[in-house]
Amino acid sequence: MEAAQTLDGWYSLHEFRAMNWTAWKTLSSDERQAAISEFQGLLEKWGVAETKKAGSQALYSIVGQKADFMLMLLRPTLEELNEMELEFNKTLLAEYTVPTYSYVSVVELSNYLPAGEDPYQNPEILARLYPALPKANHICFYPMDKRRQGQDNWYMLPMEERRSMMRSHGMIGRQYAGKVKQIITGSVGLDDYEWGVTLFSDDVLQFKKLVYEMRFDEVSARFGEFGTFFVGNILPTEKISKFLHVN
Amino acid sequence: MEAAQTLDGWYSLHEFRAMNWTAWKTLSSDERQAAISEFQGLLEKWGVAETKKAGSQALYSIVGQKADFMLMLLRPTLEELNEMELEFNKTLLAEYTVPTYSYVSVVELSNYLPAGEDPYQNPEILARLYPALPKANHICFYPMDKRRQGQDNWYMLPMEERRSMMRSHGMIGRQYAGKVKQIITGSVGLDDYEWGVTLFSDDVLQFKKLVYEMRFDEVSARFGEFGTFFVGNILPTEKISKFLHVN
Amino acid sequence: MEAAQTLDGWYSLHEFRAMNWTAWKTLSSDERQAAISEFQGLLEKWGVAETKKAGSQALYSIVGQKADFMLMLLRPTLEELNEMELEFNKTLLAEYTVPTYSYVSVVELSNYLPAGEDPYQNPEILARLYPALPKANHICFYPMDKRRQGQDNWYMLPMEERRSMMRSHGMIGRQYAGKVKQIITGSVGLDDYEWGVTLFSDDVLQFKKLVYEMRFDEVSARFGEFGTFFVGNILPTEKISKFLHVN
Amino acid sequence: MEAAQTLDGWYSLHEFRAMNWTAWKTLSSDERQAAISEFQGLLEKWGVAETKKAGSQALYSIVGQKADFMLMLLRPTLEELNEMELEFNKTLLAEYTVPTYSYVSVVELSNYLPAGEDPYQNPEILARLYPALPKANHICFYPMDKRRQGQDNWYMLPMEERRSMMRSHGMIGRQYAGKVKQIITGSVGLDDYEWGVTLFSDDVLQFKKLVYEMRFDEVSARFGEFGTFFVGNILPTEKISKFLHVN
Amino acid sequence: MEAAQTLDGWYSLHEFRAMNWTAWKTLSSDERQAAISEFQGLLEKWGVAETKKAGSQALYSIVGQKADFMLMLLRPTLEELNEMELEFNKTLLAEYTVPTYSYVSVVELSNYLPAGEDPYQNPEILARLYPALPKANHICFYPMDKRRQGQDNWYMLPMEERRSMMRSHGMIGRQYAGKVKQIITGSVGLDDYEWGVTLFSDDVLQFKKLVYEMRFDEVSARFGEFGTFFVGNILPTEKISKFLHVN
Repeated sequence: MEAAQTLDGWYSLHEFRAMNWTAWKTLSSDERQAAISEFQGLLEKWGVAETKKAGSQALYSIVGQKADFMLMLLRPTLEELNEMELEFNKTLLAEYTVPTYSYVSVVELSNYLPAGEDPYQNPEILARLYPALPKANHICFYPMDKRRQGQDNWYMLPMEERRSMMRSHGMIGRQYAGKVKQIITGSVGLDDYEWGVTLFSDDVLQFKKLVYEMRFDEVSARFGEFGTFFVGNILPTEKISKFLHVN
Repeated sequence: MEAAQTLDGWYSLHEFRAMNWTAWKTLSSDERQAAISEFQGLLEKWGVAETKKAGSQALYSIVGQKADFMLMLLRPTLEELNEMELEFNKTLLAEYTVPTYSYVSVVELSNYLPAGEDPYQNPEILARLYPALPKANHICFYPMDKRRQGQDNWYMLPMEERRSMMRSHGMIGRQYAGKVKQIITGSVGLDDYEWGVTLFSDDVLQFKKLVYEMRFDEVSARFGEFGTFFVGNILPTEKISKFLHVN
Repeated sequence: MEAAQTLDGWYSLHEFRAMNWTAWKTLSSDERQAAISEFQGLLEKWGVAETKKAGSQALYSIVGQKADFMLMLLRPTLEELNEMELEFNKTLLAEYTVPTYSYVSVVELSNYLPAGEDPYQNPEILARLYPALPKANHICFYPMDKRRQGQDNWYMLPMEERRSMMRSHGMIGRQYAGKVKQIITGSVGLDDYEWGVTLFSDDVLQFKKLVYEMRFDEVSARFGEFGTFFVGNILPTEKISKFLHVN
Repeated sequence: MEAAQTLDGWYSLHEFRAMNWTAWKTLSSDERQAAISEFQGLLEKWGVAETKKAGSQALYSIVGQKADFMLMLLRPTLEELNEMELEFNKTLLAEYTVPTYSYVSVVELSNYLPAGEDPYQNPEILARLYPALPKANHICFYPMDKRRQGQDNWYMLPMEERRSMMRSHGMIGRQYAGKVKQIITGSVGLDDYEWGVTLFSDDVLQFKKLVYEMRFDEVSARFGEFGTFFVGNILPTEKISKFLHVN
Repeated sequence: MEAAQTLDGWYSLHEFRAMNWTAWKTLSSDERQAAISEFQGLLEKWGVAETKKAGSQALYSIVGQKADFMLMLLRPTLEELNEMELEFNKTLLAEYTVPTYSYVSVVELSNYLPAGEDPYQNPEILARLYPALPKANHICFYPMDKRRQGQDNWYMLPMEERRSMMRSHGMIGRQYAGKVKQIITGSVGLDDYEWGVTLFSDDVLQFKKLVYEMRFDEVSARFGEFGTFFVGNILPTEKISKFLHVN
């Protein structure tokens, strides 16, 4: 079968951490403040890339026991992400966290779209490949595969059929324009699922509506295999102190 | 396929914890009492929302090793649940617990029901979307999916067929009216399964009878995929001291 | 499909524990003796229910790394089991154990049997619903489901077909009468599988013969889905000291 | 379907352990030597059974992170294996190991063979039911099931078809005579898979050749479901000191 | 079915480790330097085999939480790999690492190729069986199986059909010649999957392109079952100090 062509942008690392609150409380107030300042300093340093359009980042608290917070990092190279991960791992705060999940991928646009011009010259496409992550109230992340099982084998379908299904699938997404911003990252050969889906919205209910509506669409209904879902609330740098405050 | 429309009420967090009894016993009797009082104070504070019809909560002990107790929390926003989770995590008691499972969802009614009036004007529906959790003797919680596998793909069925099956499925539930109260929470896009089912009853055997009877119904028999089941006994605030008492 | 009716007896808790031998050895000989005496006292106290026909219990050592020992507890209510679990968790011995598996269920007889009289008036049936656990040399426990998969969906079969298959399945069991005693506990809505099977025998090889022979029977061959298997040797109260003795 | 008859010999326990090297290094050289001597003494004591033809044992180091070493123990009763496991667990060495996997089974020969004489009178069969484990350079262990899935359901096949397939399957094994010694242990009703397969060879590559060739045979291709594979090198008693030596 | 013949070269161990940064930081700067020097010395010692064409090795940092670094080791015998693993486990550095995954296999070429000459006389084939691992910027490792499921059972296909599919599959790989170097290791009978795939490239995006393009090829689309994917950046000996540097 003909493979879909992809456009690939920045590399992406989703990093999920649970707090070890018990250990964190054993620190003195000053030590905790030092850890928070160091972490805020790191975020600030990393944030410079955003002003230079050389990357982007987001910090969200996660609801439920899967994690306490997550960092989403975008950079032009895998080496930079590795370096950032290492920088975080060496902070004082990291000593009081437990890694719970991570995801390595690259921002991806697929070519189930009409052919023509050089997409890398298209400013709209460039903005999607190298996105500034929105400051939305909520985030939703999940990894996914296209199913390859018996009669439901996405990769055995003719290109035309896949293209047509993806088109109608995209239609649903477009109805949520302005409500949900979606960033697709490809992870074939990079991590355990084929794609990561990161959704941003100011209204968390839109995640449920969008994913549920899509589930009735053939692409998801017959071919979607989903990993774990993470959902959370934005954690602006200035609220980190409150988030981590303990008596 | 046409997606089912849902009505969505309060956000929900099920929080399951095991006690670290060994560590708990290392505390002095006074320290344990302080931890208990702090936890009871938190429950009391949270309970105010219930009197204001701005949320609800329940505390149950869980039988078996999956957890020692669980909190079920309902609130109008995900931010409030995140805040409550954080408050609990920062208590002294939390240091002596181990997170074992959690579930993020939102109270949901589906529209496999006749159309007509504005449901959000219907007091009965509002009472179901924003429920005061009953003080039943027993609780049962499990997450579930509708199957999408070969010939048994719920999401590929026509709306009419789904509606008809859900109607007969609902009939079974109705036979348990007065015996079992059921709260369905939707979690598509929020957590790993598509729904959470929370059952309340004064007779724990009714959980088994209800779930078993439903299993012979086509909706469950062909399309139900179930996660882990938790079952437990009510733990009223005044019994927390006895529950946590050690010599 | 018509649901099978069940008769339900005592609630059951299977509790599996591994010893933390390293920590156990750090205790003084006196402390270990105190822990053993406390545990034996608890078993003795619980054993009173058996003399009153208000419950039963069994203690077995488990072979292999899945656990070092298991307690099987039967009681009229889930609250009592929860209370017993809590009592054990608060003992000194429990501090030196690690929970490895548990199972919550209720003794069950199904009605794939001819109709007629009120079964709850039948002394033979009552003896099976409220059994005194035998003092057999060996125990075998495993949870199981009836499969719901494509053409092999137990819950979509007509009652008559299920009844007929269960009858021939029961025939195999009956050939082991006197060699293996079997207690079926139902766990739909209570734990992760639909049933627990607990076998008792003085000859451990009979477990293998029985389960293997049944596997060729259509009920197991087409419809049986099995969880983990635990096998062990009886651990009489007076041998606990030797079992737990370390230098 | 007619069940295959089995001949059953000694009970078997495969016990896999990882070393906690960090903790092991905290011991003094004398303490480590004491732990090693105690373990060697235990092996020696156990080895007496072999001279009396009342059991057998093998010790292998395991390659990769699944374990550092494994003990394979054969005895006439499950109680003896339980006792040996307990003896090991109470040694000083065991405190510095982490259990990583175990398998409980019984040496088995199946009767997919021509009928006739009393097999328990046949010296060749007795030697296979009560084997002295070879001192081969390498070991390979894996558990396995016969598949019961849709059209590929071993237990729904007529006896004659199973027998014929097993015969041709056995042919492959026989080509490796002299190169690979195979011990099949049955574990239906005893552990999570239906069989354990233990292979011994002086040339590790023969494991790969044998298992790969068999995979193309219908019995494995259609019906084999495999658990985890462990492979290792013989660890003679006199090399234990070197294996465990740290500075 | 006729089994594919394989050519087998060096044995391979992939060893993945996460750093315990918290513990690592508790060491003094001198102790950390000693640990680093010891590890570098070990790599240097092992590296001698490469100059003697008696093995090869590679060290890469891994992106995401699956590991911090991985060692890939090639040697003529399994005993040597076991010895090297043991040497590493006994280092000071190893005390500050956590094993996260390992893979045991042997470099393999399959004979879905035209017959003829003795392949072990062919220098090109020898170079592939006993490869010097390239110093590429990036590595990608994943284990995989050929599916045996219903109509998609690789091992039930005639040799000719398998050969033809493998040929067209190989074509895709050849398009990446010069961009991606691929080393296939066989692990049937040695580890949990049937093969390990290790890819090397200076451009990490080529891993994604190659694996994605192959996924549309029938061999992968219908028959590929993939384990976990690891991706990382080369970690030359002289950069280990920086990688492990903490304040």
